[in-house]
Amino acid sequence: MENCIFCRIAKGEIPSFKIYEDEDVFVFLDIKPFSKGHCLVIPKNHFENIFDVNENILKKVIVTAKKISEKIKNTLHADGIRISQSNGKAAGQEIMHFHLHIIPRYENDNMPMHPAATVSDLPQADFEDLKKIAEKISNK
Amino acid sequence: MENCIFCRIAKGEIPSFKIYEDEDVFVFLDIKPFSKGHCLVIPKNHFENIFDVNENILKKVIVTAKKISEKIKNTLHADGIRISQSNGKAAGQEIMHFHLHIIPRYENDNMPMHPAATVSDLPQADFEDLKKIAEKISNK
Repeated sequence: MENCIFCRIAKGEIPSFKIYEDEDVFVFLDIKPFSKGHCLVIPKNHFENIFDVNENILKKVIVTAKKISEKIKNTLHADGIRISQSNGKAAGQEIMHFHLHIIPRYENDNMPMHPAATVSDLPQADFEDLKKIAEKISNK
Repeated sequence: MENCIFCRIAKGEIPSFKIYEDEDVFVFLDIKPFSKGHCLVIPKNHFENIFDVNENILKKVIVTAKKISEKIKNTLHADGIRISQSNGKAAGQEIMHFHLHIIPRYENDNMPMHPAATVSDLPQADFEDLKKIAEKISNK
């Protein structure tokens, strides 16, 4: 897409700190990193989100994320890796081109432990509620 | 693994609110949900993390996550979906069996927008630093 910043990065029209590139996938450092080595894995072609992305491309993205996670662990000595991927403004997606974050974690990096929230002590849910939700999602 | 709670859930030895199951993958509701419909996608076989997981199984996990995300969006009318997956205690992993969170997001659910932190206004990084990090990861 003409005005998509990630399409332009993937094409090399906008410079980036490239980590990896192949036919379908492009990986580059986030310039507003959560932590050292925070990078983004994107398909070169434009897909908006997980609903939109082609299955084969999605598989390539996740396998690339695995390989880059290994590289980050080995080269930057990260203590852990968080993978995160947001779909829709309500989920925090800012650039409307599918992207997966690889966020290296280091001991004492002061990030919250949980991926979704500052809530670290979530209560256990009501099991009747859960049953209804499960039935709804699985169309039972 | 004998004492792994997720292995036991996948085998049906411990009850769960099951969303989906096939030969390799099992999906169930998190009983301490971040939001309505928060569920976990796991491989039935035991893998500890993204470093350890078999590539083919990883592909099945992400394709299942896509399908379940679509179902959640359609059945629960989520406004967005966050996918999150943690590797290592430093990244917040609590159960040492590979699992991927599907976290439905709703307008005004009061979760922080960003997947890693309460930091919403991260500064832009020093480009010389980024260059060095990119070289390190990509072994240039």
